[in-house]
Amino acid sequence: MSGEIRYIGIGMLGYAFMGKAHSHAWRDIPIFFWPPPAIPKLIVIYGRTKEKVKEAAIRYGYKRFTTNWKDVIKDPEVEIVDNCLPNHLHKEPTIEALEEGKHVVVEKPLARNSKEAREIYEAAKKAKTKSMVAFNYRFVPAVILAKKLIEEGLVGRIYHFRARYLQDWLIDPSFPLVWRLRKEYAGSGPLGDLGSHIVDLARYLIGEPKRVSGMIKTFIEERPLPEDPSKRGKVTVEDAFVAVIEFENGAIGTLEATRFATGRKNYNNFEINGEKASIEFNLERPNELRVYWHEEPVRDIEGWHEVLVTESHHPYIKYYWPPGHVIGWEHTFLNELYHFLDAVVNDKSIEPQGATIEDGYKNMVILDAILESAKTGKVIEISY
Amino acid sequence: MSGEIRYIGIGMLGYAFMGKAHSHAWRDIPIFFWPPPAIPKLIVIYGRTKEKVKEAAIRYGYKRFTTNWKDVIKDPEVEIVDNCLPNHLHKEPTIEALEEGKHVVVEKPLARNSKEAREIYEAAKKAKTKSMVAFNYRFVPAVILAKKLIEEGLVGRIYHFRARYLQDWLIDPSFPLVWRLRKEYAGSGPLGDLGSHIVDLARYLIGEPKRVSGMIKTFIEERPLPEDPSKRGKVTVEDAFVAVIEFENGAIGTLEATRFATGRKNYNNFEINGEKASIEFNLERPNELRVYWHEEPVRDIEGWHEVLVTESHHPYIKYYWPPGHVIGWEHTFLNELYHFLDAVVNDKSIEPQGATIEDGYKNMVILDAILESAKTGKVIEISY
Amino acid sequence: MSGEIRYIGIGMLGYAFMGKAHSHAWRDIPIFFWPPPAIPKLIVIYGRTKEKVKEAAIRYGYKRFTTNWKDVIKDPEVEIVDNCLPNHLHKEPTIEALEEGKHVVVEKPLARNSKEAREIYEAAKKAKTKSMVAFNYRFVPAVILAKKLIEEGLVGRIYHFRARYLQDWLIDPSFPLVWRLRKEYAGSGPLGDLGSHIVDLARYLIGEPKRVSGMIKTFIEERPLPEDPSKRGKVTVEDAFVAVIEFENGAIGTLEATRFATGRKNYNNFEINGEKASIEFNLERPNELRVYWHEEPVRDIEGWHEVLVTESHHPYIKYYWPPGHVIGWEHTFLNELYHFLDAVVNDKSIEPQGATIEDGYKNMVILDAILESAKTGKVIEISY
Amino acid sequence: MSGEIRYIGIGMLGYAFMGKAHSHAWRDIPIFFWPPPAIPKLIVIYGRTKEKVKEAAIRYGYKRFTTNWKDVIKDPEVEIVDNCLPNHLHKEPTIEALEEGKHVVVEKPLARNSKEAREIYEAAKKAKTKSMVAFNYRFVPAVILAKKLIEEGLVGRIYHFRARYLQDWLIDPSFPLVWRLRKEYAGSGPLGDLGSHIVDLARYLIGEPKRVSGMIKTFIEERPLPEDPSKRGKVTVEDAFVAVIEFENGAIGTLEATRFATGRKNYNNFEINGEKASIEFNLERPNELRVYWHEEPVRDIEGWHEVLVTESHHPYIKYYWPPGHVIGWEHTFLNELYHFLDAVVNDKSIEPQGATIEDGYKNMVILDAILESAKTGKVIEISY
Repeated sequence: MSGEIRYIGIGMLGYAFMGKAHSHAWRDIPIFFWPPPAIPKLIVIYGRTKEKVKEAAIRYGYKRFTTNWKDVIKDPEVEIVDNCLPNHLHKEPTIEALEEGKHVVVEKPLARNSKEAREIYEAAKKAKTKSMVAFNYRFVPAVILAKKLIEEGLVGRIYHFRARYLQDWLIDPSFPLVWRLRKEYAGSGPLGDLGSHIVDLARYLIGEPKRVSGMIKTFIEERPLPEDPSKRGKVTVEDAFVAVIEFENGAIGTLEATRFATGRKNYNNFEINGEKASIEFNLERPNELRVYWHEEPVRDIEGWHEVLVTESHHPYIKYYWPPGHVIGWEHTFLNELYHFLDAVVNDKSIEPQGATIEDGYKNMVILDAILESAKTGKVIEISY
Repeated sequence: MSGEIRYIGIGMLGYAFMGKAHSHAWRDIPIFFWPPPAIPKLIVIYGRTKEKVKEAAIRYGYKRFTTNWKDVIKDPEVEIVDNCLPNHLHKEPTIEALEEGKHVVVEKPLARNSKEAREIYEAAKKAKTKSMVAFNYRFVPAVILAKKLIEEGLVGRIYHFRARYLQDWLIDPSFPLVWRLRKEYAGSGPLGDLGSHIVDLARYLIGEPKRVSGMIKTFIEERPLPEDPSKRGKVTVEDAFVAVIEFENGAIGTLEATRFATGRKNYNNFEINGEKASIEFNLERPNELRVYWHEEPVRDIEGWHEVLVTESHHPYIKYYWPPGHVIGWEHTFLNELYHFLDAVVNDKSIEPQGATIEDGYKNMVILDAILESAKTGKVIEISY
Repeated sequence: MSGEIRYIGIGMLGYAFMGKAHSHAWRDIPIFFWPPPAIPKLIVIYGRTKEKVKEAAIRYGYKRFTTNWKDVIKDPEVEIVDNCLPNHLHKEPTIEALEEGKHVVVEKPLARNSKEAREIYEAAKKAKTKSMVAFNYRFVPAVILAKKLIEEGLVGRIYHFRARYLQDWLIDPSFPLVWRLRKEYAGSGPLGDLGSHIVDLARYLIGEPKRVSGMIKTFIEERPLPEDPSKRGKVTVEDAFVAVIEFENGAIGTLEATRFATGRKNYNNFEINGEKASIEFNLERPNELRVYWHEEPVRDIEGWHEVLVTESHHPYIKYYWPPGHVIGWEHTFLNELYHFLDAVVNDKSIEPQGATIEDGYKNMVILDAILESAKTGKVIEISY
Repeated sequence: MSGEIRYIGIGMLGYAFMGKAHSHAWRDIPIFFWPPPAIPKLIVIYGRTKEKVKEAAIRYGYKRFTTNWKDVIKDPEVEIVDNCLPNHLHKEPTIEALEEGKHVVVEKPLARNSKEAREIYEAAKKAKTKSMVAFNYRFVPAVILAKKLIEEGLVGRIYHFRARYLQDWLIDPSFPLVWRLRKEYAGSGPLGDLGSHIVDLARYLIGEPKRVSGMIKTFIEERPLPEDPSKRGKVTVEDAFVAVIEFENGAIGTLEATRFATGRKNYNNFEINGEKASIEFNLERPNELRVYWHEEPVRDIEGWHEVLVTESHHPYIKYYWPPGHVIGWEHTFLNELYHFLDAVVNDKSIEPQGATIEDGYKNMVILDAILESAKTGKVIEISY
């Protein structure tokens, strides 16, 4: 490292689950990515509740806090706005921040539906700044390795993609009616929350979809209200979806997400079958990739390779620890925000590694098509 | 064992893959199932080619051989006819054998399509003898255990079923155009061959389906002729299918089969998610069942149980070896034919453990619905 | 198959666990190994109890039975004597059968101690017939594959061998004092029963040992008598042993066997670490071999290969089923006795694939050294 | 959080592998452990090379840096000295820091041998401050869960412990002669580096050892000098060790560590067999614990539980992420230093969760006994 150190101001919207994950990542970047393109300075954090956002500011190390999100967007020290708010608050602050000339990271899914997403996309097209949708599973080293193997030709023509993102946090019928279960806040259920990830990975790894057909289901239709558990309210999103998909390149597949898969905690699992190799990934073991290579030179030992993706030559690993010293879920955010930081500071492209706002919009079009198919009982052709 | 030993005559149609598996099983029954309901006597075996069927008779231990399948059906020493012929030869010999008053086992799928299957079903309804479709994966001890756990209430309300039967023996484009790739002999591709198994397991484990929607695909459209590899012929069945399914009981699921899943050799894999437990099975490790039990009394150790299904209290295991001394794929046939033998000799019911001809017919209706959906792009309601 | 079929007479000593496994194997050989060197004819079986051995004869298909083992050895129709009796009855019948000019298979361990084993070895040296110790785990296809990979140079110089054979059938203190827990019948505990297998695999895979040092332990010192559970008798063998070993070639390792490893049913597990590759095997998943190859041409996918050892090019598999259609524990006996049959009929060598009586003797020397070390607290040098 | 925030000054010795891991952990504590006992303030860091330690200070966020370790110990703002230096620099700075009245964390192994360790132990006994040896694997949530299951009686009487810590970073003969391969700096090879961890876990989980017997081996005796690869120097530590152990409570076991286990990257693996349950752990999958419970109420599903140790009721997990969002290797340091911080600020005991200097001393006595046994060929009784 030589010369003067560049610092860059971060403004955060939200301090909950994603706010914590992103704040931690911004802060840890210089420890691992040394020398970094710039050292992130945590300027200001927004939250609805004064007491809580004040505490968050101390905890994560922000200089200031506010209960008005516009303060973050207007803050002259802020160069990057990081939008970690719930889905119904993606559109307005993201568009305003872009218009204000800030670089913007926005959590996934981009919006509650493709119409909203389209508006953000139009704003991003006009903006001169960098913007990215935070599809963090593009930044798991094992997933990037999968992409690399496909691009280098190890896999060959792809025949199959099967992806399922399974969780089980709704199996208890007394679990309350949180915002994620209400259409006005979330847009959809696991389709947007989990399905958006696997649809993004499908596009990242396999290519553009041509047609989809799906079914959705709400297993438990009423739940206690969080503010008053003696009362019950209607669940207005699906509890699960299943779909079949055909890609432009001829591959076919299955997609599925649920919050009712007892025993599956964060099981974002995909399998790709190609003419020369197959690949399997499971987010509950993010440091591993399973690869079957049919052109193995020693035919006797052809089999599924259990690759521990912790070698220094594996994507992003050189920044962390020696082989076998695994990284965790939170490191996806470090990789992702480092990628964004590098793009901002050194004027590099977000894609193809990162997801652009355009990717976020196309993602929403596909999710809407699955809902449409579930409603009509018909295959839906994808058209952006 | 006391009193006189009862022997029972077996007549076999076919000596290839299934003929070998069934002949072996009949012969091994007394070694393991002691005392057996009766000791099978291998009377006569049919095959098209004299030299080959003669050799098969010596090898497997049949007293006689023939190149006319009607000889088997008419043979007075034969009490059980076992039809292991290709799909296009299921209907006629099965119906004739039933009409001749023989007990009949017929390989799956029951026929090339639901129309043919219906004819066999009508014949079976008229017959006084026992008949069974050889869905042997109902006889994997781990699968029976899954059924038992569901019936005993450990699983509770079922939310999800996902099944996929993946093989990879067609990935080489120079693999010849065998009978299984020609509609006139096979009826369909992996749908009938592999999909019939998972559809049968779906009905056995979960219940009746309500609606299905699917896509099919033929990846390699021409292949060398087996009789003359310099010429190529058209593949007239699908290479793979994907489908979504809704069951009468409200569960939803995905179904899939292919012969293009590089690295998957005989991967008949299903997962069931219920409100209280989940279950996973994989035929490449048939001695294991994975079970997640959410009502575990010691909360700290809740997790997926890797159950080695080799204890004497597990289904069928007491007939074999001590714990940890695993059985193989071929033992599914021993269990299945022992079940049939017991039903025949002691006049017991084939169902619910075994698949009846009615089950075989309903199975074909569902397969036909998937094909219809793939053709029309619409969800198809199941109606028997 | 052409010309006349050769049949060969088998005489069996014992009808229990091993008697069943061997009888079944002899009988199944022609079904799988076609054309076989000869078709085994089951002539006569010996057991102490008339009623039981008579039943066994019917069940397994022997022409005759006897309660005098000398009848088997003298029987002129018998060419091969298969000694499946308990350890204290290995020496005398084996030596007599050899002297009678029979080919002899004898179960492992060869004897109760190295002194007895030496006597059998001397008899075998004098005999003109074939003889083999039934170390059946040399005949697991995955184990033979391990051996092949070592011999072909894939592994390179070997640094480590660690083997443990774990079972748990003695954890219940009320389990009775069976013959395997009494020194006069068994010679030793898991050392002879399980340890003999891993010591045999150590010699088969790695080479001759140079030095060993071990500890033994009897955890439960008294148990109910089988004949009268109200009385208790002393356990006179060890319940478990642990040892360290150095090989002539410089590799070092650990050896261990126990009947007190809760949850391990038949866990015969070894790992080999070489300069270029490592190998792991576990008998509870006998159709799999795990191989790590450090010279992988695609560095990114270096990892443990989970090899499903069911391809037709894998050892012995071509005789069975298509890929992914797994075989079971009992098939080790088919492979082993086919190997012996082939050696007898076609005058081939038992070694290096099979274990000779000399191997059985050396095995006992090593087991005795571990006991000696446990007694003296000193490293023991191996000397045959 | 209420009232004034307490800050506590940290002084760091070393900036390499462990210096990075510890600095990161101190810095991340408030993000996860909220509210923390105190917020660590990174005051000063020591390193030999000015340029490098200056960069480390910026990167990790220390206010000051120095090339004289005594500056750290004397610094009045420093309350906790964290000694991450190589083994030969454990004794002197640790003793001086204790004498200076600082709280001290020191990396493992405590010293190069038990004699040095004894001196540190004597100093710790005299000190009024808190001190801890950084055996971080005591702070893996899955390992703490194992301890809890033993203490709560789920496991019952323990019969077996088998532990092996396997790495492979020395298999390349051209790897240079780094300090870890030279006795004067490291004291021993994998015995001190890796073996110290498994010996510590043995004492933490099972209890005090009674006797050990071991063998050591140096496979590659000369290596290139780091400073001049054209010259070679002698490896003066062992490359691997194997040992057997008997515990005071009657359990027996095997211990092993190596840097020559091709394909094992950071394979710190142990298995415990008790009369009622067994437990297995593997550091390459640190978020999982495998548990076999023999008193399972549903006998049919007895099996190895694959416990994903990411539930909020699991040790330390409530501070991190939702279920299935795994943590990494580095989090062991967060947990460990949080434990120490809590002990310092709230005057709590380091043990039994953390390792005291006394534990570090006893650890060295056992390691020395294994070396002594390897030299003499005799079992060594442990005496502190």
